[in-house]
Amino acid sequence: MTEPTASPAPPLSTTPRTTLGRKRDRAGTDRASLHEVLDAALICHLGLVLDGHPQVLPTGYGRDGEVLYLHGSSGARSMLAAGAEPEVCVTVTLLDAVVYSRTLNDHSMNYRSAVIYGRPRLVTDPAQKEHGLRVISEHLAPGSWDHARVPNGKELAAVTVLALPLDEASVKARTGPPTDDPAELSSRAWAGLLPLHQQWGTPVPAPDLAADVPAPPHITERRI
Amino acid sequence: MTEPTASPAPPLSTTPRTTLGRKRDRAGTDRASLHEVLDAALICHLGLVLDGHPQVLPTGYGRDGEVLYLHGSSGARSMLAAGAEPEVCVTVTLLDAVVYSRTLNDHSMNYRSAVIYGRPRLVTDPAQKEHGLRVISEHLAPGSWDHARVPNGKELAAVTVLALPLDEASVKARTGPPTDDPAELSSRAWAGLLPLHQQWGTPVPAPDLAADVPAPPHITERRI
Repeated sequence: MTEPTASPAPPLSTTPRTTLGRKRDRAGTDRASLHEVLDAALICHLGLVLDGHPQVLPTGYGRDGEVLYLHGSSGARSMLAAGAEPEVCVTVTLLDAVVYSRTLNDHSMNYRSAVIYGRPRLVTDPAQKEHGLRVISEHLAPGSWDHARVPNGKELAAVTVLALPLDEASVKARTGPPTDDPAELSSRAWAGLLPLHQQWGTPVPAPDLAADVPAPPHITERRI
Repeated sequence: MTEPTASPAPPLSTTPRTTLGRKRDRAGTDRASLHEVLDAALICHLGLVLDGHPQVLPTGYGRDGEVLYLHGSSGARSMLAAGAEPEVCVTVTLLDAVVYSRTLNDHSMNYRSAVIYGRPRLVTDPAQKEHGLRVISEHLAPGSWDHARVPNGKELAAVTVLALPLDEASVKARTGPPTDDPAELSSRAWAGLLPLHQQWGTPVPAPDLAADVPAPPHITERRI
């Protein structure tokens, strides 16, 4: 994702709820780690309070500098509710490994996660809306904006785009090997990490695609 | 996950919020699809309302029949709040492919997701708590319960386990190729799926593991 040309790089928020209550050593302390997590994941989970009830839906997004754009094509009801600018909590999680320890109690996961709180703004200006959609598109399907047909006026009008500033956020991660108590080291149980990888498979052409249309490099060479 | 011996298999809830407002063809209609999504994913996103604000945190879980057990080792504050049995929304999402279409507007994702609403019960009985932990452990690290040291009384007392019945749930999925409007089929843009796969890497022994302790088959032969 592109960085704004004159963006400040403020520290992450230190409001009480974004200051971790436990395992503070797992807290990322700078914007770079927030950006890294947001750019590495593909989808977020958008939480909001709907008629007093919690609701969490998976949603596409993209980051442009210190703004997260959220897409309204799924979770339509939530997005409409969010259009009234209620508070949301957006969480992004990457699972990196299962941590096997000598004890069940110290089994864990290596992961990176980001949590963002805020009141997203409903983007209504057509040019800004197109920009937000492009940012989301370049996150989900980089290269597609310059390859496929861009949204026309009617399509642009039908979609909901939300802009959430990255003002109040926290980053949390666990990395490294299991940490067994010295008293457990005589165990014969195996301890270590089982890494979890994501990778793209082979592109599958649509049944109605002409045989002479090749998959372009932005798809065949896409890497996680 | 094991099935209860005398479990009914009721239809999924049809309360308004679990009856999809759009794209009804994407709604799974039976418990088997709910179980399949829950068993295939590794983590969930737990949403609740904390002091009036939405909060969404990634959390480990496991399913036993029609009960989802949630683990309290991460998201401690949320779990304590949840211990008071407020309503939660638990969402599980599996991303299967990016759907490339001839138009940006029809770009999409193939995915499976489950959403469960309810008021989780704080599990306090030690035997039930141990059972819930075992279910969570077998989901995250199948085979570990019979390999590593099980929780002792002190460890059991320190952990929080929640039990959420699968009474009100919905399942949603998108599968299959892109669906372009016939008017777009003359496009030379590529259309199709780019599948996304998860796979386990090679186990990495802990630095303090004795050289003669091999990784056991439940780890080396683990499959997604």
